[in-house]
Amino acid sequence: MTATLWGTPEEKKELSPSIQKMLKKLLNASSDNVQHPAENEIKIAESRLEEDDLNALRSIVGAEYVSTEPLQRLRRARGKSYPDLMDMRSGKTLDAPDAVVAPDTEKEVLEILRHCSERKIAVVPFGGGTSVVGGVNPVRENFRALITVDLTRFDKLEDVDTVSLEATLGAGLSGPHAEMLLEKHGLQIGHYPQSFPYACIGGYAATRSSGQSSAGYGRFDEMVRSFTIVTPQGIIHVGHNAPKSAAGPDLRGLFLGSEGTFGIITRVRLRVHRIPEVKRYEAFSFKDFEAGANAVRQVVQTGTGPTVIRLSDEMESSVNLTSTDSIGESDADQRGCLCLTMYEGTDDHTRSRHEETRKLLLSLGGKSLGEGPVRQWEKGRFGAPVLRDGLLDNGAVCETLETATDWSNVPRLKKAVTQTIGDHLAKTGTPVLIMCHVSHVYKGGCSLYFTIIAGQDSKDPETQWWNTKKAVCQAIVDNGGTVSHHHAVGHDHRDYLPEEIGETNISVLCAVKNHLDPAGILNPGKLI
Amino acid sequence: MTATLWGTPEEKKELSPSIQKMLKKLLNASSDNVQHPAENEIKIAESRLEEDDLNALRSIVGAEYVSTEPLQRLRRARGKSYPDLMDMRSGKTLDAPDAVVAPDTEKEVLEILRHCSERKIAVVPFGGGTSVVGGVNPVRENFRALITVDLTRFDKLEDVDTVSLEATLGAGLSGPHAEMLLEKHGLQIGHYPQSFPYACIGGYAATRSSGQSSAGYGRFDEMVRSFTIVTPQGIIHVGHNAPKSAAGPDLRGLFLGSEGTFGIITRVRLRVHRIPEVKRYEAFSFKDFEAGANAVRQVVQTGTGPTVIRLSDEMESSVNLTSTDSIGESDADQRGCLCLTMYEGTDDHTRSRHEETRKLLLSLGGKSLGEGPVRQWEKGRFGAPVLRDGLLDNGAVCETLETATDWSNVPRLKKAVTQTIGDHLAKTGTPVLIMCHVSHVYKGGCSLYFTIIAGQDSKDPETQWWNTKKAVCQAIVDNGGTVSHHHAVGHDHRDYLPEEIGETNISVLCAVKNHLDPAGILNPGKLI
Repeated sequence: MTATLWGTPEEKKELSPSIQKMLKKLLNASSDNVQHPAENEIKIAESRLEEDDLNALRSIVGAEYVSTEPLQRLRRARGKSYPDLMDMRSGKTLDAPDAVVAPDTEKEVLEILRHCSERKIAVVPFGGGTSVVGGVNPVRENFRALITVDLTRFDKLEDVDTVSLEATLGAGLSGPHAEMLLEKHGLQIGHYPQSFPYACIGGYAATRSSGQSSAGYGRFDEMVRSFTIVTPQGIIHVGHNAPKSAAGPDLRGLFLGSEGTFGIITRVRLRVHRIPEVKRYEAFSFKDFEAGANAVRQVVQTGTGPTVIRLSDEMESSVNLTSTDSIGESDADQRGCLCLTMYEGTDDHTRSRHEETRKLLLSLGGKSLGEGPVRQWEKGRFGAPVLRDGLLDNGAVCETLETATDWSNVPRLKKAVTQTIGDHLAKTGTPVLIMCHVSHVYKGGCSLYFTIIAGQDSKDPETQWWNTKKAVCQAIVDNGGTVSHHHAVGHDHRDYLPEEIGETNISVLCAVKNHLDPAGILNPGKLI
Repeated sequence: MTATLWGTPEEKKELSPSIQKMLKKLLNASSDNVQHPAENEIKIAESRLEEDDLNALRSIVGAEYVSTEPLQRLRRARGKSYPDLMDMRSGKTLDAPDAVVAPDTEKEVLEILRHCSERKIAVVPFGGGTSVVGGVNPVRENFRALITVDLTRFDKLEDVDTVSLEATLGAGLSGPHAEMLLEKHGLQIGHYPQSFPYACIGGYAATRSSGQSSAGYGRFDEMVRSFTIVTPQGIIHVGHNAPKSAAGPDLRGLFLGSEGTFGIITRVRLRVHRIPEVKRYEAFSFKDFEAGANAVRQVVQTGTGPTVIRLSDEMESSVNLTSTDSIGESDADQRGCLCLTMYEGTDDHTRSRHEETRKLLLSLGGKSLGEGPVRQWEKGRFGAPVLRDGLLDNGAVCETLETATDWSNVPRLKKAVTQTIGDHLAKTGTPVLIMCHVSHVYKGGCSLYFTIIAGQDSKDPETQWWNTKKAVCQAIVDNGGTVSHHHAVGHDHRDYLPEEIGETNISVLCAVKNHLDPAGILNPGKLI
């Protein structure tokens, strides 16, 4: 079995011969030097954990929940970024956590953190392992050892309030599992990031995730009513006794997005939603990205809006409107920009929003394309990451990155990022396909999500990637964008956070970190 | 000129003879022992500021912006709570800030804070002075002196982005002044707390204010895109390079609601709104509070909703539906509960929400009362506080307090608060009129706002008030409510914050405070 980046082996998709031909022709991509070792061929470093530490951990959680097995450690050694997959394919001996520990209660988590603080053992919290920013990778700094705390046993729907539409969920519940449990109560979360099949509740909260239905249901952080986070200083319940409060600062703001560096989130009380009675769909086409972005902005600023609204730029639209098998063969960018809308809710509420949105989009130059493209998107909405393995097998760089900014700054930021990616990959002699879409809209601005396909520098793909990544991050902060709209900071964006928020804000985060985690064991090398 | 609690002397409203009679008859309220000294008769303590400190402050902001005049100091000595007004009427010598200092730039604010840190002088930031929780009152602790930093000179509309609908406003701008400046650009904030005529932008941010149009435009904290806060450690810009971000924690959560204890907010970038094309109005009546609350909840949970939605309980409805002059003479609680709705926005967007909301409210037992009651409410929406002086002149306690909770907990919390108020005021032998309304709704819950009118214990009104206040705060936290939905913590709710959020959360706030304000000079005795 080869180590796939995404999906089960059954889901694996080989690229069609025509795409393979296109990659070769357009991007100089070649599979000649590609390695793809099987999972059991990947070598990882020996566990450095001493027997007395292992015994201490076993006495906290039970021996069966402490593993030093290579396969368990390997599977928690990396997230799902391009460099993570390249590492897995590199043939090198990888560093990996020295043990995987799976506690069952907050008390056990606290005991682990206290033991590790005392013994200078770093702790990486692990949920779905879908980080694309190096958020779960082992960074040892000067610690004696490093363990993964796996949240998999926090997997309960703890309670449901069908009047207030709130539910408490274990941090280790995956998206589909959580939705399955809520469905019995006629409820849903409605949080659909592309990582949905694997990512879990705690990770959504720790990284300020945002899902494809954010226009309708909000970002994940906006759904969080309260949560429990275990720090070396104690177990904290974060959130007031009400959905909204003026009783001092809102500490949810501080702990959501803390990426496992202040504590480990164990359970989350969420605002949930009734399963929609009705769904409506309509796609539109705009002559160009500018016209589409203007129309989408007008919709959201009016206060109405779909549950899902997405706008692809010219390049992405041409690819989206082409079947996967014929990418690279279409007469592409003649087709303008594709805008997808979907409406969920009661019959009245979906109809009124659909009518209002439609009228606005048509008045601003949109042409209806009917339901088809939206239904097609919905069917494949979590599928794209599966394609990455096939692209890598064929010697292509396949990467995504994202940012957000105010509406007035969208043209400048989009141009700067596109140009920087192009320039940097051009340096390594490869043409590059850069696609962009808007998938999260706010009254003040929107996200920009870039998908990049280029030929891999077969000699030094790491340097090719890192140079491009660094240049793009710099271009983002220099051009008024945020370093991440929904992928988080992790290890990969860490150097750019001070540039975005300033050193005094960083010092505030460090003061909190020092207070809650004085030994600094929690997820070192990440965020701050 | 008598010292009025609220409004200009011209706005002062004497109570009609019939209300005076009713107060006397129902509440045993009597004006016999009432004092109401003129402003220039109120005695305040001498300024304790030494000449070298005064000179240092003068050299920072200019001599004309440092005042030790008694009237200037008196006007910043208290907020607008019931105990504040009782203090003003008490005949006692009041403590007051030793000087009022009005800086013009962040650099000046920083220099003031550094001087005061070095010289152990406490600093109270002051905007509109409308705190009803003791938020601006001088608490000296062990400081050598105490000054007020008045934000009045931060009064500019600094820039406007009509594409992203954002504007940067000086912290010292009052609500009406800010709206006047934005109006020229076709924009509005849409934030209308009852303190609107006086309260200002910085205060809204520092206290997590919520306005009467929160259903449509959100709470004030939700409108804040970014802001500048000056701390003794430096000037911080808080907020990412985008309306929403996953680049680590959202420090807005930490600084909004920090009530001047971490720093002084000097300017705020807000999400603003286009001035609505259309307003629609409709009032409804429900048989009782339970039916009304259920209907209002269904509206907000559907995802549609008015810009303003309010529900008064039986007692408040009977008073609201009666003209001010005839309070106490109506056949009141036969009328059920009054629900007001107002819709602002484009023609399409107001119509669709009005139709959806109306259909839902009617299907859930509402009866339309037409536009009248909503228009009447809109006309007098900021007027109620003016009545307090008249009530006090007639020997009545007149107080408001508020909380919020989840929908499922509303009945329990409303009952507990009502009962506690009744029990405690009954102890001092006075009957009490307790009115309640819901004016802020969320998918998960709502606010509960109580207005209390009772006869004053003429011998010891302070003890009467404090005993009731303490008992109610305890009842709120014991019954799952938040200690404040929009009035903030200040001095008066301070003892109950640890009960609501727990000691570890308080320790996090203290860690931040110690980091940013190591001398502890900022607004001592408030919040934490």
